[in-house]
Amino acid sequence: MATSTTAGTAGQRNHDTARLLVSCADGPGIVAAVTTFLADRGANIITSDQYSTDPEGGRFFLRLEFHLPGVGDALGELREAFDREVAQPRGMRFHINDASRPKRVAIMVSRYDHCLLDLLWRARRGELDMAIGLVVSNWPDLAAEVDRFDVPYEHVPVTRDTKPQAEAHELELMGGGAFDLIVLARYMQVLSADFLDRIGTPIINIHHSFLPAFAGAGPYERAKERGVKLIGATAHYVTEDLDEGPIIEQDVIRVNHRHTVEELTRMGADIERTVLARAVQWHCEDRILVHGNSTVVF
Amino acid sequence: MATSTTAGTAGQRNHDTARLLVSCADGPGIVAAVTTFLADRGANIITSDQYSTDPEGGRFFLRLEFHLPGVGDALGELREAFDREVAQPRGMRFHINDASRPKRVAIMVSRYDHCLLDLLWRARRGELDMAIGLVVSNWPDLAAEVDRFDVPYEHVPVTRDTKPQAEAHELELMGGGAFDLIVLARYMQVLSADFLDRIGTPIINIHHSFLPAFAGAGPYERAKERGVKLIGATAHYVTEDLDEGPIIEQDVIRVNHRHTVEELTRMGADIERTVLARAVQWHCEDRILVHGNSTVVF
Amino acid sequence: MATSTTAGTAGQRNHDTARLLVSCADGPGIVAAVTTFLADRGANIITSDQYSTDPEGGRFFLRLEFHLPGVGDALGELREAFDREVAQPRGMRFHINDASRPKRVAIMVSRYDHCLLDLLWRARRGELDMAIGLVVSNWPDLAAEVDRFDVPYEHVPVTRDTKPQAEAHELELMGGGAFDLIVLARYMQVLSADFLDRIGTPIINIHHSFLPAFAGAGPYERAKERGVKLIGATAHYVTEDLDEGPIIEQDVIRVNHRHTVEELTRMGADIERTVLARAVQWHCEDRILVHGNSTVVF
Amino acid sequence: MATSTTAGTAGQRNHDTARLLVSCADGPGIVAAVTTFLADRGANIITSDQYSTDPEGGRFFLRLEFHLPGVGDALGELREAFDREVAQPRGMRFHINDASRPKRVAIMVSRYDHCLLDLLWRARRGELDMAIGLVVSNWPDLAAEVDRFDVPYEHVPVTRDTKPQAEAHELELMGGGAFDLIVLARYMQVLSADFLDRIGTPIINIHHSFLPAFAGAGPYERAKERGVKLIGATAHYVTEDLDEGPIIEQDVIRVNHRHTVEELTRMGADIERTVLARAVQWHCEDRILVHGNSTVVF
Repeated sequence: MATSTTAGTAGQRNHDTARLLVSCADGPGIVAAVTTFLADRGANIITSDQYSTDPEGGRFFLRLEFHLPGVGDALGELREAFDREVAQPRGMRFHINDASRPKRVAIMVSRYDHCLLDLLWRARRGELDMAIGLVVSNWPDLAAEVDRFDVPYEHVPVTRDTKPQAEAHELELMGGGAFDLIVLARYMQVLSADFLDRIGTPIINIHHSFLPAFAGAGPYERAKERGVKLIGATAHYVTEDLDEGPIIEQDVIRVNHRHTVEELTRMGADIERTVLARAVQWHCEDRILVHGNSTVVF
Repeated sequence: MATSTTAGTAGQRNHDTARLLVSCADGPGIVAAVTTFLADRGANIITSDQYSTDPEGGRFFLRLEFHLPGVGDALGELREAFDREVAQPRGMRFHINDASRPKRVAIMVSRYDHCLLDLLWRARRGELDMAIGLVVSNWPDLAAEVDRFDVPYEHVPVTRDTKPQAEAHELELMGGGAFDLIVLARYMQVLSADFLDRIGTPIINIHHSFLPAFAGAGPYERAKERGVKLIGATAHYVTEDLDEGPIIEQDVIRVNHRHTVEELTRMGADIERTVLARAVQWHCEDRILVHGNSTVVF
Repeated sequence: MATSTTAGTAGQRNHDTARLLVSCADGPGIVAAVTTFLADRGANIITSDQYSTDPEGGRFFLRLEFHLPGVGDALGELREAFDREVAQPRGMRFHINDASRPKRVAIMVSRYDHCLLDLLWRARRGELDMAIGLVVSNWPDLAAEVDRFDVPYEHVPVTRDTKPQAEAHELELMGGGAFDLIVLARYMQVLSADFLDRIGTPIINIHHSFLPAFAGAGPYERAKERGVKLIGATAHYVTEDLDEGPIIEQDVIRVNHRHTVEELTRMGADIERTVLARAVQWHCEDRILVHGNSTVVF
Repeated sequence: MATSTTAGTAGQRNHDTARLLVSCADGPGIVAAVTTFLADRGANIITSDQYSTDPEGGRFFLRLEFHLPGVGDALGELREAFDREVAQPRGMRFHINDASRPKRVAIMVSRYDHCLLDLLWRARRGELDMAIGLVVSNWPDLAAEVDRFDVPYEHVPVTRDTKPQAEAHELELMGGGAFDLIVLARYMQVLSADFLDRIGTPIINIHHSFLPAFAGAGPYERAKERGVKLIGATAHYVTEDLDEGPIIEQDVIRVNHRHTVEELTRMGADIERTVLARAVQWHCEDRILVHGNSTVVF
């Protein structure tokens, strides 16, 4: 199967591990209830991270990775029991995911290849725990490159007039739960509110500035004009407000007066691909919880 | 009292919080046992960090910060119960510390003032949760500066011949459990194995290189000679092997061919004070567990 | 004299060196003309930096540091000859400064001590080539601290009603060419356009965000709210447009969801003082040329 | 031609620019002599960098990039005139290179693909001013990957017994001035002193540690063992002393106790490819002068 080449190697699979993400109102006894539930079933907690915005009256977040032989086949039952015994009595929101199943990912891209190639290459070498199942582009340019990774490439042209039809086509290709994540790897079209409503899948975008500075178009040009001494990139979840969604990761690189806009663009590309790869990795490892318009990254 | 001026402000005290540090052989049920013990007593876990070198047969490390009204007065009882009910059955090593009591710290220094001043100043503004009770120096130079922070300054000269007597004097000044931590803030004398055996208090040193590069004397001179493009500093616990103890924190700064040894020394001083302050802060917040010759920093 | 204690040590003085800064329309032969002028007088160029926005029709910037025995006493004559022989024929703007004379600096501050103390320490150590001659504050709080450095402290209270009189007093204290540089070391009052017009001295401000993000008030609060993963600081020349002047230096530090606004403020303080110290150092070493609303830093 | 696809785009060529590199004993009048020589021929200096280890009795280094219509066709004549009029009288060593001619580069690699692919991508995008003409590997693994870039791939197996013959073959492939630079992109064989003597071409190696720490084999394993908080990579010119040649560039990334050796290896790979790309770029732009066992990078 096409996508198998981009998934991580079997040696990195954790066949008997799962991840539990919890958020709820903070209060005494939450961790004890959760960990006792798991201990009673023979699970061994491998890693645990938690955060509370305020021990009194705040919001509580928890991520547990646990080892439990055969957990992959017993997820449905485990979720049901956890919901009944632990989550419902405390009004928790939770997910339990099989850590051995790589996330199914679709990538949207326009003409710049650096973020796309970096993700394809990292997936192939097993760095990112995901299976890239599709690349969608409004340009045909990168088809041959993607073909080398045995990943299907769909060219969906978008013009002002055809945007509704194009998005309908994209929804067919990527909607309906076929993917766990969509990554905008320098996709230069704005997705409509309607598309975002209907896709039902989290979307990560890479913006080529350290937001909130230089939101919108032409960030490197504006960085040059303003004379900043650092340029950066920001990976964030996509919401209806352009460049305003919850920030997952950011990084910057030092620049100086000698750098032209063209050089800023080239240097920035290195930051973009690194920042995006980290954000995608964290999402695929179930490390991110959204809290209002911020993220908790464990 | 002299040291009171350097402790954090009362507003930052957590009067009803304590910290539990645990290390033991990994296995199922540890977290459940610990958190159930705390939940049964009405404690609310504020933060929790854990790490296992290997879920099967590895070493397990845990740090919990919990809120429990009146915990400061009930520490003895709590420790005893925890020891009996949780720790002994599982062969755990543990500490429970009152988070509201600042660590008592002594600083040893020679003639460079940058690390010393930075610690005194951070303590005064309440950044570091510690009370600096004494500064010991083999030089008299910095006495006036320290006096301004209302901290006692002891001048203990050290020569090759008087080193045993000097160390005996230092043991009197700083030994016997009078301090929770000793910080070598660019103290240029090597402490003897005998002193280290007898002091019974953890000691943090700042070394002016990114260890293991340039261990020993003259690191900036040797960095210039080798033509490295980064210089750094390392904070580590002191052991009998000079510059070989468990590393707590490191950082670096970019340099180039134009920088003279004098400039490297100046630029490095900024890294030294920052790295040392972080290491001291983490120690004072009970964030560091030593594992062999490494540290786990939560 | 009071300020002498904060100036660099004599050992670091370059008694026979001067610095030439040039900007002009780019074109062939500029460097040859300048360096031939200097060579003819027996000067040896120590360092040279140049930059052109565009070799054809762009703006050219040059900084030369040169060694010429006795140059300190011959500056007037040298400037006149350079103006006549080199600068006027090419429409150059230029400065020639005696590198052995530390810049005279006044600092304005409100109640936060971190930037002020860092500058005082660095000046005392001889790190910054300047003599701090005055500290002006709208609060009395830091008088004792400054007094320890033998620097005069002027308390000039500012209220909405008394602002014109206060600024008139500040102009008396710092105007008339008494200082080469004014540093706003977290001075929380906005200086009026009239003051800026009349002071006739460059002013460097430190803003506690990575501009253009979070210009204006409350940057750490807004950084927390937006959920950024980096916070920063920006040193810039002051212009009439608040937080819009030419940026000299910026830096950032990584933060995460766990950091409270109070912790962001504390971590940011370390970046603020470092960034400000670098900007002040570069200014004092005649390394900065303003180009439109940007800086060229050699 | 095969290599044309990896060279930069024509739009980035500077057809009328050349670069002059000079090193000599420092003394008055050098810059004036050089720049007057160029000005007399109508050249316009675009960028100029210089450095002196000591204005009195030190070593002087200069890099000039200048614009001179038709310089590409007049290099021989220009070199001869410069040698006669400027260089010989002052005992200068110098190079004048045509900035419009990309460097011809051969890459040696074993089985890790990250550094190789990164260089191929960057060259294809026109980021690096070079034409990759050959990849030599002691393994056949990466042949298909390299073939996609239309670059020849030579598999030269090396065993203990066949090393002399293998190196003879490599000399045939890469010697005789066919290349301007050889890059060891994680080539795991040690090149013999004899090979280095005879190849007559500079060689850049990437080592997977921040030298001088962890020179030799297994740096990530040793980094884990020592518990360092930063790992890094170093690009350096190859000399007969393994991992001891002049350092061109270094960088580091923060790690912690949670990272396994496998993760250090993966994170380090990102640093390795970035550091190597910078070093290769600087070499291809004639920015590096070797000074003893250090580098001056302009």
